Amino acid sequence: MNDLSYMSLALDLARNTLGQTSPNPVVGSVVVNNGEIVGMGAHLKAGTEHAEVHALTMAGSRAKGGTIYVTLEPCSHHGRTPPCADLIIERGIKRVVIACLDPNPLVSGKGVEKLKKANIEVEIGVHEALALELNKVFFHHIKTKKPFVTLKTATSLDGKIATSTGESKWITGPIAREDVHQLRHEHDGILVGVGTVLADNPSLTTRRSVGGKNPIRIILDHYLRTPLNANVVTDKIAETWIVTTDLASTEKRSELERMNVKVLTLHEQRIKIEELLTLLGKMGVTSLFVEGGSSVNDSFLRSRYINEVITYIAPKLIGGKDAPTSFSGIGHPSMTDVLQLSIKEVKQLGDDLKIVSVPKGE
Amino acid sequence: MNDLSYMSLALDLARNTLGQTSPNPVVGSVVVNNGEIVGMGAHLKAGTEHAEVHALTMAGSRAKGGTIYVTLEPCSHHGRTPPCADLIIERGIKRVVIACLDPNPLVSGKGVEKLKKANIEVEIGVHEALALELNKVFFHHIKTKKPFVTLKTATSLDGKIATSTGESKWITGPIAREDVHQLRHEHDGILVGVGTVLADNPSLTTRRSVGGKNPIRIILDHYLRTPLNANVVTDKIAETWIVTTDLASTEKRSELERMNVKVLTLHEQRIKIEELLTLLGKMGVTSLFVEGGSSVNDSFLRSRYINEVITYIAPKLIGGKDAPTSFSGIGHPSMTDVLQLSIKEVKQLGDDLKIVSVPKGE
Repeated sequence: MNDLSYMSLALDLARNTLGQTSPNPVVGSVVVNNGEIVGMGAHLKAGTEHAEVHALTMAGSRAKGGTIYVTLEPCSHHGRTPPCADLIIERGIKRVVIACLDPNPLVSGKGVEKLKKANIEVEIGVHEALALELNKVFFHHIKTKKPFVTLKTATSLDGKIATSTGESKWITGPIAREDVHQLRHEHDGILVGVGTVLADNPSLTTRRSVGGKNPIRIILDHYLRTPLNANVVTDKIAETWIVTTDLASTEKRSELERMNVKVLTLHEQRIKIEELLTLLGKMGVTSLFVEGGSSVNDSFLRSRYINEVITYIAPKLIGGKDAPTSFSGIGHPSMTDVLQLSIKEVKQLGDDLKIVSVPKGE
Repeated sequence: MNDLSYMSLALDLARNTLGQTSPNPVVGSVVVNNGEIVGMGAHLKAGTEHAEVHALTMAGSRAKGGTIYVTLEPCSHHGRTPPCADLIIERGIKRVVIACLDPNPLVSGKGVEKLKKANIEVEIGVHEALALELNKVFFHHIKTKKPFVTLKTATSLDGKIATSTGESKWITGPIAREDVHQLRHEHDGILVGVGTVLADNPSLTTRRSVGGKNPIRIILDHYLRTPLNANVVTDKIAETWIVTTDLASTEKRSELERMNVKVLTLHEQRIKIEELLTLLGKMGVTSLFVEGGSSVNDSFLRSRYINEVITYIAPKLIGGKDAPTSFSGIGHPSMTDVLQLSIKEVKQLGDDLKIVSVPKGE
């Protein structure tokens, strides 16, 4: 065991809470004394104890003289909980190993400063790349004030999302579909167009075999065409927000609001993705899972507000000129404008393939 | 070193000659005596020495008392060369290790029989699966009398082969494109529809940095619309066959024949893939590389005569309802009829992905 392996453990603790800490980051912590792990912890939910508190509580008096590993710089300010830097000093920790600094420019480095003033040895940057990747959503939201956008599609090997007669059940297998529910669990919001609501009446909830957190259901609906008896309106399983424009009728708006749907109005004729994301970011949505349909995908593609693309590919050939693909609309007519990505991960999920890619250079 | 590692070497020798031995299989051989490799060889070209002959020649008198490893059962009959089984006996080999038997039912097992009669120890089945995979084309042709069909497509991550305005240069990068030329080198025939000839005027030759064998260029052309000044007609770099129907004009046929193009007529209104493959198989084409366009791909998809699918995917999002995909035409309108594949290999080639899949259960 060494700094890298203890930090790996701390990162693992954090990784497993992805989806449950928003708008806070995921954070893990490990306390080691004399070569023995004496404390472990992770931040579980916004408003509750930070990872260091859990780890130091487990360690008790054995924290004294030890080393604490934290995946993110300990806080130095009074937020919903007292500053972790103070607690670390109080408990007599001798050395603090940090994967990455707090991204918030107002507080970044302040925790480290406080620790150093107390004569604690501080090391920064152990497994930094992994820690940044793990909290990419949190970092993105802090920096841009917009949600991190993940666009997901599921197609056959020939790029179709249904047959020419519209059959789409099922393109991908059960393992890929369970993976989608994991991603829903990890995101603050799930977004579809009203076309998808009208065509499929989906519930857009998280259905993992172990349960899970439902994302806020966000529907893009220029004219408020969402039916009052749609599952997303009636089931009350999760919050539903409908984003609309001035073109919508005020009567329909009131009806939906009476059903506890939040109706958000962008004062324009066409919803602009940039303004949508600014609005959602302001309302605390740090991550957005875009699940289509193909016209919504096209809007995101043309806006270029895509931070990650997840493509499930089923080894099937459907064929057919009229079989739909995952992007409709205008797209990019010129090859120089297409969205260039690089592949970050390829994984076989049962019979299917999962390809994770990110915009080139990000 | 053991039987498995010597056979691996023999398979490697064979693998590197893929594309140059048709209509013969690729075969490798290694001779070992007293723990030392004393001979190595591979069959290089139809009509020339078999692998065992090269390996035994290299071994010379050191073959006596040794073991010979062969990826395919030694022949027992007089073909274009004398029987290898006789040579093995003559040279005093004590033990023969074979990966797989000859697939031709008329001779399968006869080589082994001859060797055993000469009191030589024979072992069969070492790395059998690898040997069968290596010569899948040869085995397929022997058994079905039809070429092994590999269908290749190259698309963006959203399944498009061009933008909505028809720009298609380039979807994939140079490493993926070089891989396509390796596949052309390995196939007896390359097939496209006349639409591709009219649209792109391709040369359909093998352009590897190290040179290579050109496949026979086979054009499906119901009405003989191939222009007399098309590259495949005028360049004389490789053979060109045009497959047509009774609907074609006899005058155009004569003109093409005068240009040394072979015109093959299937006596029907629409070319049936099954009859096409029977014809090509009879003419010695053991492997066919189908490179589109999307209407030819559709014909193969609906005929189900596809033995392997190679899909190159470039991490780009093109979008657009009107951007073309790799399969047009009718396709499979019902999900129960779509061609189910299983993924055999996934490989990153530069920025792109290469996915090799085969029909499920094959």
